[in-house]
Amino acid sequence: MGDTIATNRGLRPRLRDLGIVIGTLPPGPLNAITDVPGVRVGHATVIHGDGPLRPGHGPARTGVTAVHPHEGSAFASMVPAAIAVLNGAGEITGRSQVDEYGLLETPILITNTHSVGVAHRACVEWLGRRTPTIGREHFVIPVVAETFDGFLNDGAAQHVTEAHVFAALDSAAEGPVAEGNVGGGTGMLLFGFKGGTGTASRVVEIDNHRFTVGVLVQGNFGAREDLLVDGVPVGLEITDLLPTPGEIAAAPETDGSVIVVIATDAPLSDRQLGRLCRRGMLGLARVGATARNTSGDLLLAFSNAPENRVERGDDRVILPSARLADTRMDILFQATIEATEEAVLNALVAAETMTGRNGNTAYAIPHDRLQEVMARYGRLRSTR
Amino acid sequence: MGDTIATNRGLRPRLRDLGIVIGTLPPGPLNAITDVPGVRVGHATVIHGDGPLRPGHGPARTGVTAVHPHEGSAFASMVPAAIAVLNGAGEITGRSQVDEYGLLETPILITNTHSVGVAHRACVEWLGRRTPTIGREHFVIPVVAETFDGFLNDGAAQHVTEAHVFAALDSAAEGPVAEGNVGGGTGMLLFGFKGGTGTASRVVEIDNHRFTVGVLVQGNFGAREDLLVDGVPVGLEITDLLPTPGEIAAAPETDGSVIVVIATDAPLSDRQLGRLCRRGMLGLARVGATARNTSGDLLLAFSNAPENRVERGDDRVILPSARLADTRMDILFQATIEATEEAVLNALVAAETMTGRNGNTAYAIPHDRLQEVMARYGRLRSTR
Amino acid sequence: MGDTIATNRGLRPRLRDLGIVIGTLPPGPLNAITDVPGVRVGHATVIHGDGPLRPGHGPARTGVTAVHPHEGSAFASMVPAAIAVLNGAGEITGRSQVDEYGLLETPILITNTHSVGVAHRACVEWLGRRTPTIGREHFVIPVVAETFDGFLNDGAAQHVTEAHVFAALDSAAEGPVAEGNVGGGTGMLLFGFKGGTGTASRVVEIDNHRFTVGVLVQGNFGAREDLLVDGVPVGLEITDLLPTPGEIAAAPETDGSVIVVIATDAPLSDRQLGRLCRRGMLGLARVGATARNTSGDLLLAFSNAPENRVERGDDRVILPSARLADTRMDILFQATIEATEEAVLNALVAAETMTGRNGNTAYAIPHDRLQEVMARYGRLRSTR
Amino acid sequence: MGDTIATNRGLRPRLRDLGIVIGTLPPGPLNAITDVPGVRVGHATVIHGDGPLRPGHGPARTGVTAVHPHEGSAFASMVPAAIAVLNGAGEITGRSQVDEYGLLETPILITNTHSVGVAHRACVEWLGRRTPTIGREHFVIPVVAETFDGFLNDGAAQHVTEAHVFAALDSAAEGPVAEGNVGGGTGMLLFGFKGGTGTASRVVEIDNHRFTVGVLVQGNFGAREDLLVDGVPVGLEITDLLPTPGEIAAAPETDGSVIVVIATDAPLSDRQLGRLCRRGMLGLARVGATARNTSGDLLLAFSNAPENRVERGDDRVILPSARLADTRMDILFQATIEATEEAVLNALVAAETMTGRNGNTAYAIPHDRLQEVMARYGRLRSTR
Repeated sequence: MGDTIATNRGLRPRLRDLGIVIGTLPPGPLNAITDVPGVRVGHATVIHGDGPLRPGHGPARTGVTAVHPHEGSAFASMVPAAIAVLNGAGEITGRSQVDEYGLLETPILITNTHSVGVAHRACVEWLGRRTPTIGREHFVIPVVAETFDGFLNDGAAQHVTEAHVFAALDSAAEGPVAEGNVGGGTGMLLFGFKGGTGTASRVVEIDNHRFTVGVLVQGNFGAREDLLVDGVPVGLEITDLLPTPGEIAAAPETDGSVIVVIATDAPLSDRQLGRLCRRGMLGLARVGATARNTSGDLLLAFSNAPENRVERGDDRVILPSARLADTRMDILFQATIEATEEAVLNALVAAETMTGRNGNTAYAIPHDRLQEVMARYGRLRSTR
Repeated sequence: MGDTIATNRGLRPRLRDLGIVIGTLPPGPLNAITDVPGVRVGHATVIHGDGPLRPGHGPARTGVTAVHPHEGSAFASMVPAAIAVLNGAGEITGRSQVDEYGLLETPILITNTHSVGVAHRACVEWLGRRTPTIGREHFVIPVVAETFDGFLNDGAAQHVTEAHVFAALDSAAEGPVAEGNVGGGTGMLLFGFKGGTGTASRVVEIDNHRFTVGVLVQGNFGAREDLLVDGVPVGLEITDLLPTPGEIAAAPETDGSVIVVIATDAPLSDRQLGRLCRRGMLGLARVGATARNTSGDLLLAFSNAPENRVERGDDRVILPSARLADTRMDILFQATIEATEEAVLNALVAAETMTGRNGNTAYAIPHDRLQEVMARYGRLRSTR
Repeated sequence: MGDTIATNRGLRPRLRDLGIVIGTLPPGPLNAITDVPGVRVGHATVIHGDGPLRPGHGPARTGVTAVHPHEGSAFASMVPAAIAVLNGAGEITGRSQVDEYGLLETPILITNTHSVGVAHRACVEWLGRRTPTIGREHFVIPVVAETFDGFLNDGAAQHVTEAHVFAALDSAAEGPVAEGNVGGGTGMLLFGFKGGTGTASRVVEIDNHRFTVGVLVQGNFGAREDLLVDGVPVGLEITDLLPTPGEIAAAPETDGSVIVVIATDAPLSDRQLGRLCRRGMLGLARVGATARNTSGDLLLAFSNAPENRVERGDDRVILPSARLADTRMDILFQATIEATEEAVLNALVAAETMTGRNGNTAYAIPHDRLQEVMARYGRLRSTR
Repeated sequence: MGDTIATNRGLRPRLRDLGIVIGTLPPGPLNAITDVPGVRVGHATVIHGDGPLRPGHGPARTGVTAVHPHEGSAFASMVPAAIAVLNGAGEITGRSQVDEYGLLETPILITNTHSVGVAHRACVEWLGRRTPTIGREHFVIPVVAETFDGFLNDGAAQHVTEAHVFAALDSAAEGPVAEGNVGGGTGMLLFGFKGGTGTASRVVEIDNHRFTVGVLVQGNFGAREDLLVDGVPVGLEITDLLPTPGEIAAAPETDGSVIVVIATDAPLSDRQLGRLCRRGMLGLARVGATARNTSGDLLLAFSNAPENRVERGDDRVILPSARLADTRMDILFQATIEATEEAVLNALVAAETMTGRNGNTAYAIPHDRLQEVMARYGRLRSTR
């Protein structure tokens, strides 16, 4: 567990620090999913070993990220949620139950593809310790999502352990969110650069109501030529710094995947949250996603507005709720698109060059060259 | 019927003629859905009257567009198809049956919202004349889609008649496709400019196989500020020429809708065609769609590869078929995204300023100003 | 219009009158969908002509049924709704919008397959007369469903006119609902007997709350051998009285279809109404449905609880609502299953022998023989 | 691992041995899912301990069942598949990918709710040992389903280990399939009797083609009063022998769930397999399922027809395939309904009385009383 890093090191500027601004809506104070009050994020990052792959021994470049939907227990106090699929070559467990009840009953875990089982098991264990009725009166269906880090990581082995999952769940906090090579995003690639975890948010006002939409992505998708930054074809401009030694090119089936978690404090029903998920897809399109064949592009949205939570054990026959009028949702759609686009780009600019198994290397996008391209296309603002 | 215009007048340049090129894949010879062999398109355009709205009398600014999936009868020789919904505030009839059988059994009709009934009825009649068993041995479930033209058109009345539907179906032909203010697109708006019908295509090669993806849209969506052209925020640059007298602004519920028809000669299954539909959504996102609340953003894809057609009355127990390997679909995804984006923009640049009911006017996007903006953002190529 | 019959003639006993009782929950006072307060049903029945089919002239054996979800205008005051598909070889228009908004905005019309266009058009016209903004500020997406009556009816022609649709909409009323050969069910067959329209209801109590579930079906499905009555294989016991001259057997593609409308005053969300639709499927299974290939088995559920209606033009940002706790829904599931099963059987026992085009005849199930079979299997209760 | 039981003990008669015959189609030689050539089933059964629950120590009444879709590796040679949900309060992992590709790429594992993680992890490990590219070139998305055995089992603990999963996978074989208290079904309840694993099959002929449909269920659902056997309300006739000490009644949230696996050698596409899943739902309805709120009623269908398998690494651009004409599917629908109904009932009659944690006891349905009831309703055939 010495390899766990659960705090944001803040070594890298974020997209806006580079003078690149997505959309027209303002971000929240942290420009992070944690701008939605109560949302808590924790990472456990697993990095050890170098050199040739010795399956089961490493090198390890992986981790797990936990998102608690509010300040309390998701199992005790469930929130409206929805899941949608842009391209289904991936996994998000718990989907059938989220569809049926329109509720999220566990924290969300995001990890590498082959650690879904461990994370699933650990989630049951972690919740069971806090809710002794689990296993007798109650069962629990965890929500665990994944993307594949096999280019850098010893991807068939179990370097993510239950202890790492517990660490991510336990360390989760409000406040700034670590981005780039952290948590589940540790070993991920984006458009042939180093990718990983990213986040962003938007604040909207509807009459005298103020709502926040926050997005967190685990980004691991895209061919270089697909990359768009604020509409600029950066992927056609920066064509070097491809992963070496190029195993990716030789293994097209390992392409892809992105998990998008959308949080809001706007009071939305499960149906309306499904609408947000579909706008998350549009945000992915803006950054160049084509949702390639082997990409698991999965989206989950939840609303933690207190008035719509469902308390387990509440024995009232009728549950009052409230929802934003659908006729007022357009600005939330825009907020979701913008925050998704920026969260992916924040993952991209936060990630640092990483060398993993067999010396495979994924390079960070060079900030100066990104700025140069953006300036050439008239899209660089003065940096803050 | 003197108001029917079924040919492409070719008075306006297309997007590429302006030096704006979307994506990297080559279009087909016509850069139209009719580049897919056998696909036939026909329009009936209904324009008459001026001045104040007299419900039932006009002014009429509407029409209907027909797409035959191949050179023969769609009812006799059905093709694999799929429908998908980005935002469901619209109609495409026949969806349940397309989902169930994975087949399209009628031509596709696209018209204004309140002419769906007439088009539906006319389709049954038109097919029944050609297939006398309809009504006895067979029933038929037409596919009719719509967008709403109430800003310019006398939108509650029946200016589209069965005769117009027959004209569209009968006049449908291979070759160039009229764009802009024609057919179902006649009275439509795009991003606060005049919109309408547009088309584009892409040709891809996969090993020694050559396939075409063609797209036709009836485009009637978007707020001005949303408009992106090849990633450039044109809608933020050209902020005048909004519809007058601005009834749109006063009636946000009339916002929206786009119908996207995707055709290909690649042998795809219904499931794979659903995958193309989802990429059509990504193409819409590229041009700025946020899929607003009242927008009916519906997509239909079909494959007319001869080997996968299902002949009505074929009494074989086992039907052979063939499909492109899913592992080879990425380039078709890209083709669909590019062609969808370009088809919307072709509708935009083809449409001419139109004045309709009560003097309401929607303005054509000025080509010179569009080019000026694109040049400023480094995105104008030398015109052909 | 002399052929319009909009009242229940009450000539035939209902299932319970025969001593056959489905399930254990009590029906409402009318044992009809109209037990749900405010729900109104109207039929227009079109019967004229005899002898050989002269397409366009008859014989006509058809009609249209209208269901208003509450005592007022569905367009002005929308109700939560959901649609589900067991087998999609049929049509229910408006499905995409019901999915998106979770709302029903028009009355529900049920007619024959080829009159969907007329009913659609008439619905727009009927609503437009009452809401002049339709066509300008608003558009409307009607919900029209169908089953196919081509064995008895001149099925390609337009014997259902706009006037019939208006009559069904205008005559709709609370109170007893005509069953059997009425409205959209006029020309339908069930399990090789004469079928048509049927209805039933159940009343449930949950703590101190009392709710009603009402179902109306337009039943036109099933092979004789499939028929189950309260679990008894009646279709294997009564094997004669098949339709003559047996064109059905010669035309397997005309098999099928059932439309199920589920109404409740329980406050349910659109998601929860989707759950009721899936229980309607289970009710169909109980009566022997196998959802054959050409059957369009479509279900729509709505809740007209006043607290959850959405008023058009309501400009509040946040809409309060209420819903039954999902944990209390089981008894509603049971109610839906029982009422669906009984509604189909009520259609069956209400329908009278009918001779239509070309002398084709569908026979009513003989009540005495049905009772004899039920008694033999220990399932006949003493008649009331 | 001394607790592993992987063979059918054959101590109990099956439904047909009792003179109860479901439907009219003939079963295959084994009346089991393994009548579909190549399908292999293995169980690992975990039974140890008695007396009070000591969480983590037992008593254990659980297990895991593995279904290989054909005689080889599902990962190397993928088969068309589909998943459908009747009520989603459960889990079947891999659903998004099965939807996207229409393929099954792993064996199917069925276990208790809280062992999904272990089974998932073990499946990756088991496949990885056989396919070293997993984790580097390839990732794998296992299909693991569950129902909840917390009434009898120490349901929060990990009594199912990776070794048990390997045992189920390794021991899987063609031939007779153990039913009742075995594998994943070990600790399950059905209609308040002891439930578990069951299987059945049907053979159909379509012209000169002969196909088999086999079903395997893990049955853990239903209140007593719901139980129907061949249409007879057995649950209303046998009202004693409820689970003791009645914790079930006190814990309504633990109600439910059934997993239905449908196999066929008929060449069906993924879409067509989705059609079979929906008929599996109808089969559940026939045995009394109401799909209660907390029930996870999930269905997976696959076709292992050799001509439609997709070989991993096949680099052909076009894949030939074949499918049964949809117009010929009705008899497969009937076969699926009958086999599902009978598989549930086979689970019911095979299960033996079991006492688990805290002395909780679920009773086997008494065969003699079942026969007595069936005879009284005229439904008992002479026993074989």
